[in-house]
Amino acid sequence: MASKKIDLPPGVLQPRDAVLNMAPYSPPTAGRADKLRLDFNENTVGASPKVIEYLRGHLSESSLAIYPEYGEIKEELAAFFGVEADDFILTNGTDEAIQVLVNTYIDDGDDVLLLHPSYAMYRFYAEVAGANIRELSYRAQKLAFPLEELLETIRPTTRAVLIANPNNPTGTGTSRAGIERILEKATNAAVLIDEAYYEFSGITVLPLLNDYPNLFVTRTFSKVYGMAAMRLGCLFSQSGNVDFLHKAQSPYSVNTVATLAAHAAIQDKSYIEKYVTEVLAARELLYVGLEKLDIPYYESKANFVLFVAGDRSIPVRDELRRRGVLVRDRSYEIPGCVRVTVGTREQIRRFIAELEQIW
Amino acid sequence: MASKKIDLPPGVLQPRDAVLNMAPYSPPTAGRADKLRLDFNENTVGASPKVIEYLRGHLSESSLAIYPEYGEIKEELAAFFGVEADDFILTNGTDEAIQVLVNTYIDDGDDVLLLHPSYAMYRFYAEVAGANIRELSYRAQKLAFPLEELLETIRPTTRAVLIANPNNPTGTGTSRAGIERILEKATNAAVLIDEAYYEFSGITVLPLLNDYPNLFVTRTFSKVYGMAAMRLGCLFSQSGNVDFLHKAQSPYSVNTVATLAAHAAIQDKSYIEKYVTEVLAARELLYVGLEKLDIPYYESKANFVLFVAGDRSIPVRDELRRRGVLVRDRSYEIPGCVRVTVGTREQIRRFIAELEQIW
Repeated sequence: MASKKIDLPPGVLQPRDAVLNMAPYSPPTAGRADKLRLDFNENTVGASPKVIEYLRGHLSESSLAIYPEYGEIKEELAAFFGVEADDFILTNGTDEAIQVLVNTYIDDGDDVLLLHPSYAMYRFYAEVAGANIRELSYRAQKLAFPLEELLETIRPTTRAVLIANPNNPTGTGTSRAGIERILEKATNAAVLIDEAYYEFSGITVLPLLNDYPNLFVTRTFSKVYGMAAMRLGCLFSQSGNVDFLHKAQSPYSVNTVATLAAHAAIQDKSYIEKYVTEVLAARELLYVGLEKLDIPYYESKANFVLFVAGDRSIPVRDELRRRGVLVRDRSYEIPGCVRVTVGTREQIRRFIAELEQIW
Repeated sequence: MASKKIDLPPGVLQPRDAVLNMAPYSPPTAGRADKLRLDFNENTVGASPKVIEYLRGHLSESSLAIYPEYGEIKEELAAFFGVEADDFILTNGTDEAIQVLVNTYIDDGDDVLLLHPSYAMYRFYAEVAGANIRELSYRAQKLAFPLEELLETIRPTTRAVLIANPNNPTGTGTSRAGIERILEKATNAAVLIDEAYYEFSGITVLPLLNDYPNLFVTRTFSKVYGMAAMRLGCLFSQSGNVDFLHKAQSPYSVNTVATLAAHAAIQDKSYIEKYVTEVLAARELLYVGLEKLDIPYYESKANFVLFVAGDRSIPVRDELRRRGVLVRDRSYEIPGCVRVTVGTREQIRRFIAELEQIW
């Protein structure tokens, strides 16, 4: 890697080759609060008002000063998710879940399987670990989950398979039976199923936890729960694996306010159910609106939809932003595609109205 | 490592050897809120009331739902610390700072120098990275910083030197000149100076940032600022290094509430100054109280003091706990020693009174 060293500015400390070779990741997040935020698959209405009420009542000078304690919230979340308290760890968003999993199982040069395009952080942490990354493309079959190709690609030496189900940004996924076939093939690998959008798809492998010692599942409070600002996720596996995940995790990575918010959030199930129902209705409305404009799109199992803007994807994104509507260009990974988060029907009506103006 | 594999319970996925060989770290934190918390070196009074007031006014359903944005708080903190905004990263507590530094510079087998005893997370992350760890002891010279031995131990291949100044739990430290000698010797290493207790010691190398491209400094909001629950730290270095730290860091590791709290906290400087003055006075009171009881102790530059309870260290801790006062036994690393956090004079009077009862 001597050639890389030449590129380093003078006086800069030489980083690891794995870091030197990584592309910088700069998410475009600033000044979003006053816009219609259809760009990050957040809950576009916000967290439950009961969460805010609970936080206002429980924030105090001393509660901020005390290092986080996780005993009670872990018991509550275990009951909520239908697992035991030693079947999961709390994580600083799903990002830390991916990092802890990689730190626990992936050595330099280990074989890691990913799909592309997908959530950027799988590749990110695998690269930090110096993994030998192999990627399969969603593009071969109209963005359908490439199950057969994936099964053929798994080797006995494969140490991790990192999958979002449903996948971001494609919105496509596989069935529980599909995941089981992967689990049965990749017996030496940590198989991560990231269920960030589970509440919209209704498909989960969390009930399979006791059947597969190579299964790892993540859930997040950043999407349907409207708590992306708080950074809270859960990483589930059998307790024998969780012991090792614990060993590779910082003891205080989740902040106390997130645990307070989660306590209140899981008690307001009807808020979440109502929002999911609204989003599913809005997604139908979005499909109809796109069809009226003759805009091709991909059917989605999540709270976002990819549509095809062709060579206008970036101008469409920029023109919508000028009109106060934020969407994400994904043409750098799926040519011509723009991703729009599905919010409420009212928000989708506005999005379609603005799109009609500029189409 | 075949012998290790035999120890794994059946059905547990084989972790990395580095993780398999790590000792589990379980901090004893539960049910502390109603006790006199002299066990974690927190601010024993709590965060500034202005922080709580600001949070109550700025938490809303939508602010929780939006992914964190760091632009404004980075500018504010840069001004506060007297650096440029590209001279540091925000971190999820100092723990993430250590992790990002290790991820950026330490490959499997790399030479890392630590002092012992010290903050447990230096060794923790170095072990996760599979580093070749060498430790120097504080015990050789009555817990004084072993500067000369450290200088002799640094090799051209040393990739990191991880130091807390002042050190936890010894309370001892070195001067700015001492750190400069380390920086001049360890030219190929990332030299981390963890200044978690800077506000009590008054000694900082942050002004040397532009002079040494191998210097990394951390500051935290977990100690004097009374925000341990929020998880916020800063990792400073020259901007050329910070570019690489950024590449090895998750984009959203710091939660929004922590950034709001920091915004309010740095505007209430007098609150911090007053608390530091109080702690320094209370520390003198503690020394006097210990001397009256003929209990040996180590003079400290921080908001905690190690005292010698001999073979009674664990019973003393347990008896104090029964009386509602929490302290930390450190006899497993410094024989006979107990660490007590210095709070207010009133709190220290209570601690001494309880100690008198059981001594």
